[in-house]
Amino acid sequence: MKIMVINGPNINLLGKREKDIYGHMNYSSICEYLVDKGSELGLDINIFQSNIEGEIVSAIQEADGRYDGLIINPAAYTHYSIAILDALKAVNIKAVEVHISNIHAREEFRKNSVTAPACMGQISGFGIYGYILAMMALKEASLED
Amino acid sequence: MKIMVINGPNINLLGKREKDIYGHMNYSSICEYLVDKGSELGLDINIFQSNIEGEIVSAIQEADGRYDGLIINPAAYTHYSIAILDALKAVNIKAVEVHISNIHAREEFRKNSVTAPACMGQISGFGIYGYILAMMALKEASLED
Amino acid sequence: MKIMVINGPNINLLGKREKDIYGHMNYSSICEYLVDKGSELGLDINIFQSNIEGEIVSAIQEADGRYDGLIINPAAYTHYSIAILDALKAVNIKAVEVHISNIHAREEFRKNSVTAPACMGQISGFGIYGYILAMMALKEASLED
Amino acid sequence: MKIMVINGPNINLLGKREKDIYGHMNYSSICEYLVDKGSELGLDINIFQSNIEGEIVSAIQEADGRYDGLIINPAAYTHYSIAILDALKAVNIKAVEVHISNIHAREEFRKNSVTAPACMGQISGFGIYGYILAMMALKEASLED
Amino acid sequence: MKIMVINGPNINLLGKREKDIYGHMNYSSICEYLVDKGSELGLDINIFQSNIEGEIVSAIQEADGRYDGLIINPAAYTHYSIAILDALKAVNIKAVEVHISNIHAREEFRKNSVTAPACMGQISGFGIYGYILAMMALKEASLED
Amino acid sequence: MKIMVINGPNINLLGKREKDIYGHMNYSSICEYLVDKGSELGLDINIFQSNIEGEIVSAIQEADGRYDGLIINPAAYTHYSIAILDALKAVNIKAVEVHISNIHAREEFRKNSVTAPACMGQISGFGIYGYILAMMALKEASLED
Amino acid sequence: MKIMVINGPNINLLGKREKDIYGHMNYSSICEYLVDKGSELGLDINIFQSNIEGEIVSAIQEADGRYDGLIINPAAYTHYSIAILDALKAVNIKAVEVHISNIHAREEFRKNSVTAPACMGQISGFGIYGYILAMMALKEASLED
Amino acid sequence: MKIMVINGPNINLLGKREKDIYGHMNYSSICEYLVDKGSELGLDINIFQSNIEGEIVSAIQEADGRYDGLIINPAAYTHYSIAILDALKAVNIKAVEVHISNIHAREEFRKNSVTAPACMGQISGFGIYGYILAMMALKEASLED
Amino acid sequence: MKIMVINGPNINLLGKREKDIYGHMNYSSICEYLVDKGSELGLDINIFQSNIEGEIVSAIQEADGRYDGLIINPAAYTHYSIAILDALKAVNIKAVEVHISNIHAREEFRKNSVTAPACMGQISGFGIYGYILAMMALKEASLED
Amino acid sequence: MKIMVINGPNINLLGKREKDIYGHMNYSSICEYLVDKGSELGLDINIFQSNIEGEIVSAIQEADGRYDGLIINPAAYTHYSIAILDALKAVNIKAVEVHISNIHAREEFRKNSVTAPACMGQISGFGIYGYILAMMALKEASLED
Amino acid sequence: MKIMVINGPNINLLGKREKDIYGHMNYSSICEYLVDKGSELGLDINIFQSNIEGEIVSAIQEADGRYDGLIINPAAYTHYSIAILDALKAVNIKAVEVHISNIHAREEFRKNSVTAPACMGQISGFGIYGYILAMMALKEASLED
Amino acid sequence: MKIMVINGPNINLLGKREKDIYGHMNYSSICEYLVDKGSELGLDINIFQSNIEGEIVSAIQEADGRYDGLIINPAAYTHYSIAILDALKAVNIKAVEVHISNIHAREEFRKNSVTAPACMGQISGFGIYGYILAMMALKEASLED
Repeated sequence: MKIMVINGPNINLLGKREKDIYGHMNYSSICEYLVDKGSELGLDINIFQSNIEGEIVSAIQEADGRYDGLIINPAAYTHYSIAILDALKAVNIKAVEVHISNIHAREEFRKNSVTAPACMGQISGFGIYGYILAMMALKEASLED
Repeated sequence: MKIMVINGPNINLLGKREKDIYGHMNYSSICEYLVDKGSELGLDINIFQSNIEGEIVSAIQEADGRYDGLIINPAAYTHYSIAILDALKAVNIKAVEVHISNIHAREEFRKNSVTAPACMGQISGFGIYGYILAMMALKEASLED
Repeated sequence: MKIMVINGPNINLLGKREKDIYGHMNYSSICEYLVDKGSELGLDINIFQSNIEGEIVSAIQEADGRYDGLIINPAAYTHYSIAILDALKAVNIKAVEVHISNIHAREEFRKNSVTAPACMGQISGFGIYGYILAMMALKEASLED
Repeated sequence: MKIMVINGPNINLLGKREKDIYGHMNYSSICEYLVDKGSELGLDINIFQSNIEGEIVSAIQEADGRYDGLIINPAAYTHYSIAILDALKAVNIKAVEVHISNIHAREEFRKNSVTAPACMGQISGFGIYGYILAMMALKEASLED
Repeated sequence: MKIMVINGPNINLLGKREKDIYGHMNYSSICEYLVDKGSELGLDINIFQSNIEGEIVSAIQEADGRYDGLIINPAAYTHYSIAILDALKAVNIKAVEVHISNIHAREEFRKNSVTAPACMGQISGFGIYGYILAMMALKEASLED
Repeated sequence: MKIMVINGPNINLLGKREKDIYGHMNYSSICEYLVDKGSELGLDINIFQSNIEGEIVSAIQEADGRYDGLIINPAAYTHYSIAILDALKAVNIKAVEVHISNIHAREEFRKNSVTAPACMGQISGFGIYGYILAMMALKEASLED
Repeated sequence: MKIMVINGPNINLLGKREKDIYGHMNYSSICEYLVDKGSELGLDINIFQSNIEGEIVSAIQEADGRYDGLIINPAAYTHYSIAILDALKAVNIKAVEVHISNIHAREEFRKNSVTAPACMGQISGFGIYGYILAMMALKEASLED
Repeated sequence: MKIMVINGPNINLLGKREKDIYGHMNYSSICEYLVDKGSELGLDINIFQSNIEGEIVSAIQEADGRYDGLIINPAAYTHYSIAILDALKAVNIKAVEVHISNIHAREEFRKNSVTAPACMGQISGFGIYGYILAMMALKEASLED
Repeated sequence: MKIMVINGPNINLLGKREKDIYGHMNYSSICEYLVDKGSELGLDINIFQSNIEGEIVSAIQEADGRYDGLIINPAAYTHYSIAILDALKAVNIKAVEVHISNIHAREEFRKNSVTAPACMGQISGFGIYGYILAMMALKEASLED
Repeated sequence: MKIMVINGPNINLLGKREKDIYGHMNYSSICEYLVDKGSELGLDINIFQSNIEGEIVSAIQEADGRYDGLIINPAAYTHYSIAILDALKAVNIKAVEVHISNIHAREEFRKNSVTAPACMGQISGFGIYGYILAMMALKEASLED
Repeated sequence: MKIMVINGPNINLLGKREKDIYGHMNYSSICEYLVDKGSELGLDINIFQSNIEGEIVSAIQEADGRYDGLIINPAAYTHYSIAILDALKAVNIKAVEVHISNIHAREEFRKNSVTAPACMGQISGFGIYGYILAMMALKEASLED
Repeated sequence: MKIMVINGPNINLLGKREKDIYGHMNYSSICEYLVDKGSELGLDINIFQSNIEGEIVSAIQEADGRYDGLIINPAAYTHYSIAILDALKAVNIKAVEVHISNIHAREEFRKNSVTAPACMGQISGFGIYGYILAMMALKEASLED
């Protein structure tokens, strides 16, 4: 089972700044951790990060037919990218939206997700471990099909 | 590790109605499933359900000092119960909010969670398996402390 | 044909206070009147009143399979109880929402009904006689099925 | 007891279109049905229909002093006609607002009634039978006076 | 100097109903009073009343080129008739909006005038005398040109 | 192929006023131009104009079964006529909404169309030529059926 | 009959700036004009101007019992001064609100008057002549009492 | 003079949590303090606490005719309980709303009180001493009657 | 202990107007009453009233360092004076906001207090006695420090 | 006459997904069709597609001086891209906005176009044929210049 | 080149309170600093401060014709004073709005400036140095004229 | 001291279009001017422009640790780019937001800055000279550290 992880803007800075909100691990060790944990779960994890909204749209389009599941953390774009919403609706892959922090406990404008309606579900607030929960959710969902 | 699961109004009807949204398993077999799965994860699961907002408030209060984690699905109360929000803020237990359906993909009024800001995080859209994800999230969080 | 009448908070005070809005008959004579009138229409009327939102949810759940129709006056809960809305949607009984006063002619917040979308229809403004109209509407609807 | 029934725009198309919402009887047989049913109730029913807001205003004005009750289904005008509201407030007849479908269960903009505050009450969601309920409500109200 | 007075819906009921708000003079004597007072001011007054929005639009169109001034009381249409606004903008006559009652002291929805931006000015709250003030304002304005 | 063109309030003034927004051709030569152009496209064009909302509703109702397509410019009524929306939804003719000016580039209240959701599409901003585009769109659509 | 004219902030600059909106006459000649015209109408006119909201409040208070009528142009304070509203409600003098320009045809925030509900009526858009209209309205009103 | 004190959800946790907002005294010693202080003021104090909205409604109903004054801290229910509002309006006892913290200085949603319009007044921000102020206010009010 | 009482616009009219809302005592006897009652409580009361927002700002500034407590009734300014809010935040004195009427039971715009967030608490609805309650609150608070 | 066609995000997926909304032709055959149809109309058509908002901005900038007309379907960016609005306002080419589906008949957020105010007009709801209509509109407009 | 600096309410408290937001320098040394720095830039600086909105209006009026530039920090009045906006629009002097703190990073209500639209520009967030930047901006602007 | 200047979408068109708003200098001479002026102030200026939101995010990330200050004009992205807001919050450089035109005096949607809360301050309305003011602000701020 192949899974694409797509990370949005500024996620590449993890571990450098605002550590109280986002934790201390830096982005490359997080990536390693995700691949390792995925491997333990029997999942082949591929990770993509971009600060550019349209590149995230393209990555979603390209995942279609190549991956069995999508884990997406659209970061800031969560709150206004109808383009990413449309891309998620256009492709035929189960997607899980992940947020490292609990977006429901922050600024008002971070509570609404424009992109979540096109996902299977949303996981928010469990740090990097949220990605592992998303992997398990996708694996469970594939069993149910 | 002892975990309290609190389910809000109408969750007791699971498996009876609106099966396209909430699935086919009935409430008592769901409870068994949760206890079994919790047991596999080394967790002692206790489940409480009430249709009464104030009883949920009381259950949260009583869990304080007796449980190591709280999994709460406030159902309809998610969207207006400041009383449950206040109870969650008043107690000293890590709580995870779970929704069976993806509340971000339903009616506008179901998108906002009044109670999530007092939780560690929110898991939405993964059916009954969302409770298992919540158990794992609480277990992981206890390791991090 | 068996019909459940469910009355929400403060309906038990009818005839005691705000008589200009709600009329002069007291609650027990109103109940008698409803049972009598129902009997004349060939209907078996059972009446339940509670000030507690969750008890109304439970009453709706319990009516499922036992009654052929539901007449509900959720009173104050009309305007915010998503829990009652969800209960009405979860059960398989035709329901009619009744309001003693014309809620469309009062404070702005009383105009909106959160619960009416899960009912067959709404009758508002005809005093206690609105319950009789609801009985006839349920009877007529049962003929149409 | 003489009762004027005033129907707003597009009500004349009943039975032709959107039958799932408005039923299968056509407008002229509905009119016959209302007159017959009214007759059974001892009521003299007169029916007027217009697509023109101002003609409805005039019809309300002209009913003043000639009719003992008004049943009005302002259809689309329900949601914006302050002119009809003002006409209803200006005349001295008890009026009942009727809607064939349950307006509280449809598009957001159909939930609000601009005209209902000037009526005795509102009946919504019981199909053509709603007019009969309105007749009974007016008859009952005349007994109470 | 020829002046057209256009009165909107329900103005024809003046003196019959809601006398505390609109005064006791009936519509025909009001019309006489306006013609007489206009005559005293050297103005030729012509009065038109309709309950139909579109007829008011037509009356405004037809006044173009035939009258030197327009006094309009759009009544209920004041608050939503973009059609009347557009008619007033399309013609080349100075128009004054008059309201018998003080619309700024009534229900919230009566405070906003959709039509006033296409008028020279608005006079509100001075009863029937408001029309006389409007005549004087139009006469004064014609002197200034 | 027979097409009905329905023009709303103040369209009859075209060429007389606000020429910078609506152009210089007067209404009767516009009508001739539309009939001629329709003829070139093999279309039989019939044009109706009214300032009265309810007459537009009636015209839409009457076109049902007599015309193969509808071109409607509801003018001011575009922004508030639920009655016209309901008429368009009730009839079984493909309709195209046309606006002479670009309504998306004018006052805020002109941006929203209440009536467009019941149309096949909307063409806005191309002057009188917008009607010709609408004719071609209806012709193309009839080929696709 | 003694009348107090109260002018709000920046009215003292009339004739100096924004002449296209407010006209060319300067403030002192306007004052003379008002006194003269008042005299012609048999009215004793006293004029007060202040840029300070609280001084306008005091002027209204002091007018109580000393004047038979109040003409007030609260200028910018029209749109937010609850203090002036409260003063007008507290005193026992008939007040007329005057605006030199048509406030209903300007920026959105100038359309609402916080102070008008405490006045007898509002006159807006007739330049300096609006004060004369207000004088006549007060005179007429005194005759009606 | 007998006074009922009604405390809403989570008030029973006082002294345990969020001590910076609500102070250090625990609930039972607060109750003792209130009874003692009441006694010093010549008042007979009875205290009721519930987490259940409907039980608070019932408590208010039952106080009617048995108590001379009501002190209510609806806690979270302050902000949405129309049921409590209706109960307070239905009974014939002077009520004072008390809040321990200054609700006007907290989250936006805590500023509005749904229940205060049915009370004599509101006291907010003075800690437990607010109840004593409420007692004095009720005592003073009884003297004024 | 020295306490400054600051009263906002129109408070000086107390006892003259709107007696049903504000009571019958006139302002000077109210001032005497406050000084006397303060004296009984061992408090040295100084009273300042102004209709001018900026003078209230200055009075607050000048109280800094000279008084041990502030009782402020900003009257109309309560609802929009950010200047008074800023002054209250800038000084180092405990302040209590008092309203004679219950502002939560009046017009919508009177419910919100811009200034209360900078106060210790708010007392509303107890007439002139509210000032005495505020004195006791300040006295109690000084004991707690 | 040279025309640039600019397509926004996910337009490249046409014919693959959501065929009920967007039709069955795939993107490359659509492009061929547009070039061919343009050729028939004597127009030289050049097509550009990008998922990246900023690349669309750049494409608009580069079209300036090289093309005689612009047809733009900003897709998701229609609803929030002020950057594209600014680019369209900055260049000197007539632009037509095209939408394949009727955006006025879909989700609320798709009704508003941020970009249309900088275009000559908007065509919405006619499938791929909308691009041909846009070509004709641009051709007609070039004749009028 | 003569420049008027106008400071609004509570600016006179600078250096005394909320030093983390507004800095430690007191108001009189700030004034000296501004005059000195102005002098270095060849500017003649005159400083006025008032807590009274209307006095600020008057100061702006009086600056007209006497000063070559205006630097205004309306403080709290920034967010609601239409009176100051109108004064700035009425005079013929280039004005620069200065805020010591970054108003865009504070409470929501501090983000909007009612007065800035009548200024040349706004400088916010640079402490006292913002005034020096404003001086340089005015000097540069005078060179450009 | 090294300073990065980041310009957003369409800034590269400066001097070509909308010269009345943005001035006549073209972008390359503006860049030269900024470098020269920076050099005079002892600052090493590096300028980056992109139409792509994500490239601006990346540029901000890359500036971290390499520059001593950031001057950013996010242009259209100012009003919706949470991605740029997050990037500015994530890096450790003092940033100043600059707008060439006075954004507070333009369309409503241009008044709000999503990005300014993460900057030291904002300078708006001084044309290209605003960048020089920003340089001086950064220089001054570096002295204060």
